Formats: sequence, C-alpha cells, structure tokens
Amino acid sequence: MTELDFNITIVGLGLIGGSFAMALKELKPKNLWGVDIDKEVIQTAEERKIIDKGYTKPETPLKKSDIVITCIYPGLTIKFIRENIHYFKPGAIITDTSGIKEKLINEINKFLRNDVDFIGGHPMAGRESKGLKYASKKIFKDANYLITPTAKNKAENIKKIEGLVRAIGFKNIVKLKPKDHDEIIAFTSHLPHILASALINSDDRKDTKYFVAGSYRDATRVARINYELWTELIMDNRHSTLEQIEKFENSVSLFKKAIMNNNKDELRALFKEGSRRREELI
Amino acid sequence: MTELDFNITIVGLGLIGGSFAMALKELKPKNLWGVDIDKEVIQTAEERKIIDKGYTKPETPLKKSDIVITCIYPGLTIKFIRENIHYFKPGAIITDTSGIKEKLINEINKFLRNDVDFIGGHPMAGRESKGLKYASKKIFKDANYLITPTAKNKAENIKKIEGLVRAIGFKNIVKLKPKDHDEIIAFTSHLPHILASALINSDDRKDTKYFVAGSYRDATRVARINYELWTELIMDNRHSTLEQIEKFENSVSLFKKAIMNNNKDELRALFKEGSRRREELI
Repeated sequence: MTELDFNITIVGLGLIGGSFAMALKELKPKNLWGVDIDKEVIQTAEERKIIDKGYTKPETPLKKSDIVITCIYPGLTIKFIRENIHYFKPGAIITDTSGIKEKLINEINKFLRNDVDFIGGHPMAGRESKGLKYASKKIFKDANYLITPTAKNKAENIKKIEGLVRAIGFKNIVKLKPKDHDEIIAFTSHLPHILASALINSDDRKDTKYFVAGSYRDATRVARINYELWTELIMDNRHSTLEQIEKFENSVSLFKKAIMNNNKDELRALFKEGSRRREELI
Repeated sequence: MTELDFNITIVGLGLIGGSFAMALKELKPKNLWGVDIDKEVIQTAEERKIIDKGYTKPETPLKKSDIVITCIYPGLTIKFIRENIHYFKPGAIITDTSGIKEKLINEINKFLRNDVDFIGGHPMAGRESKGLKYASKKIFKDANYLITPTAKNKAENIKKIEGLVRAIGFKNIVKLKPKDHDEIIAFTSHLPHILASALINSDDRKDTKYFVAGSYRDATRVARINYELWTELIMDNRHSTLEQIEKFENSVSLFKKAIMNNNKDELRALFKEGSRRREELI
C-alpha cells in the first residue's frame, strides 16, 4: 500500500504541522512521525491517526527520516536543527515552513552537516487560530508555496519537495532567492498584518461594532494574530518591512493630498487604478 | 393577502435598490414600485417579479407612495428629491441609503415640503459588484443599519422605517446624529476603502499574486470599488476622512518606531492589543 517510499517526520504539530500531517497521510508515506513538546498533542494526533507515531524526543524518528519538515517558529527552527544536528539520517532533506528565510538559512548553514540538505520553504497558508485543533489539509488547497533554494541544495532534493507540496494541494510553487522572498513577503504579508493591527488600534470608540460592515471586518481580520510569532517574523525582517511601510505611507499620502485639495479627478483616478489592480488579482 | 398597508417606491434598482425590493416583496406591501432610468433594468425587475411595476418617470408612483426609498448616489438623491418635490404624496416618508448624511440632509431640508418627512438611512451592506444582477436580500441579513433622525422627523415615521429595516433582516439598528454618523463612517468605512486601495497601489511588482495569502487578499478586497460612488462619498466627508487617515498614520508610526528601534516588547504589545480588540469585534 506504500505510495511514498520514504519516512517523514513533522516537527511541531500545530496548525501548520498538523495540516501537513493530515495532507501527507493521504500520500501514504512509509512512515509519518510527529515530534512535539506537548504529550497531549501527540496523543491526540496518534488517536486521530494524523501521524503513525509521535515523540517528544526527536532522536528516534530523525535517525530514520528521509524528509523532516519543521513547523515551528523561526527561532525554534534554528535551535531545533542545531541541537539535533547529529541525529539526522545521512542524505536527509530538512525543510522548514517559516515566513522569513534569509537570516534563518544563513544561521542554519553555519552548523549544517554536509550530508544533509536544508531547503527553505514557505506555505502561504494559515488561519487566525493556532494549534492542532484548527489544522486542516484544506488550508493548502490552491495556496501559494515558496521555495528558496541556495547553491548548496541538490536539484533532485528541491524537486522532491516541490513534488510533495504540489501533491498535498499547493498550486503555484515559486522558487526564489531567500533575500527576494523576504522583500516580497514584507509587502504581501508583514505589511498587511501591521495595517490590520494599526487600523484597529486607532479605534477610539467603544461601540464600533454597530457601525461596521464587511470593509472594516476584512481590513482588520488578521489583527487577530499569533503575536509572539509575528513579532519574531517581523523583527527578523525589519529592513524590508520598514521599506514597505514607507512605500505604503507614500501611497496613502496621495489619497490624502487628493482629498485635501478637493481634487475629485485625482481621487477617482487613484480608486480606479486600485480597482483595476484588484480585479487582476482575482 | 396584504401584510403592509402601504405603497412603497424604490428609486434606483441597482445592488442596494434591487436587494431592498427583493426583501420588501416578502413583506407583501400593498404595491411595490420601482423607478430607474434604465428600461432594461425595469423590464428585468418586472419579469423576475422583484417589483410590481416599474417606471422611468417617477410622477405616477410617487403620487401614491407612502414610503419612498432612494437607492442612488448621494448627489443624485438630492437632485431626484428636488426635481420631483411636487409629486410626493402628502405625509409620505422619504428615506435614503447613502453612506454620507450631514451634507445630504442639510441640502434636502432646504427645499423639502413640510408635509413630507425625509429620514436619513444607511444600510451597512454591500458588495464589490454593482447592479441588479448582484442584488440579494441576503446582504442585509444581520447587518447594521444606521438611521440619522433630525428634530424635523416625526417619531412615528422613524419607528416605521426602523420596523421595516428590521423586518428585512437588519440586526443592529442605531440612531445617531448625521454629523456623528459621518465621523464614525469615516473611520469604519471610508478609511478601510482608502487603505485597501493605497495598499494595492503601492505594489511595484507584476507577479505579486504568486506571493499572496489571505492577509493580502482580505486587506485589498474592497479596492475593487465603485470608484465614482466612493469618490463622491469621500469628497462629501472630507474633513472627517482626513482626520481618520491622520489617526491611522499615527497608529502605523507606533509600529514603525518599534520595528526601527528593534523594540520587541513594544511590537508584541501593539500586536497583542490589536488581537484583543479584534477578538472583541467578532
């Protein structure tokens, strides 16, 4: 019955790790193991047959795993790989799922063994709520996946990861440099999270909910955030994020100027341009 | 079979007017008439039995209507009422549905007959797409409705409008002063539309769609906009909108400063506050 002829370990059975496990299970890997610090999470994952077996100590599964997928915070990802560097199976592929890449990859490459391949990955999927409870393979359906190879990575290993994420539902799989990844993500992900939070924080009323419609709800949706994770992500991508904030501020100031000058033509042109761009995004 | 003992005319059978007609039809008014400049729209509305009868010239239905609901742009609302002021039935209630109130009500009160009551209304519902084709009574379900009475309005008439909008699905119906309405709406509606447009306009890439997830999609959703209408709405509410933009800019600058100073505690606190507020909004 085995479809994939290799063993996979997922590190961190939260929202992303749990969703990965659920999706990978259907591809029938030889073994699908889970590592988590939380015994209860492991028990749940085993009972629900999301994984074949779970471990709080990674030594056993790592030694036999051909692919290891880390689904934990960026800082923890580095720490986990460093602390367990001697356990990885020779030839293993390690891939991560965190939202920043350059700093993370540079750090990992400092201590990575030569017989192990680390390939940066970023599933552009998530939810407002965290934890295995909210995991679902559906979040990957037609989502974007970014892979950030470096010269150190083997072409066949990159292909393997690409095939795997395509098989679990991702649609557009783009390969780009870690630095480019961080620059783009500062715009498409870090900036929108800051704007949502800044908008809701600027509210000085207590009864706002009676005056909102879809526009405000959508604009603030991701303000409900895993603030530990996002603080880490953004602080690891400070330079690009600041650049994007400033570009956005300039864009806002064009609207402001048009309104201030009572320049209807200009305001209409700005809205029209935004409308055209948004239609293209659909 | 008549449930509502009065005649209603809806002016403008677009997204909002069409949705009103569909929803009101179920309350079985004595007659439900529609006015539109577009003959085809009227034909469609009649064929689909959304209205009992439609007119391109409003004289006939206005003369017999107890309630007139205008579902057209703010400027056109003023123009329509002024041009047809002599046709309204004595004792009629006119209510509008536009997103600004103070300027509109002041203008209308300049020429309004004493035997006709104009009550400002604002259904906080909509869609990215315009026109009868997208109309649906579902958009009103559990949405907010704002009514902006003035000293000129009769209490019984306000109650009538309130009862009507509650009956077609609106949940929270709040009465407030026209000026207060415009101030709050600048924050909850005009500002989010500007931010969505400013964000997507600040994009300087061509391949952004491969790098987006839900946060960017949601943050830019309302950039797809009826730009004629929104230019008019915002220009009629310039002062409050500018105030809200500046408040938002100050809020963004707190995030910027925290990132610039590498102040993790501050950034975490800002995200945590936003998160708390967003959870309360649900």
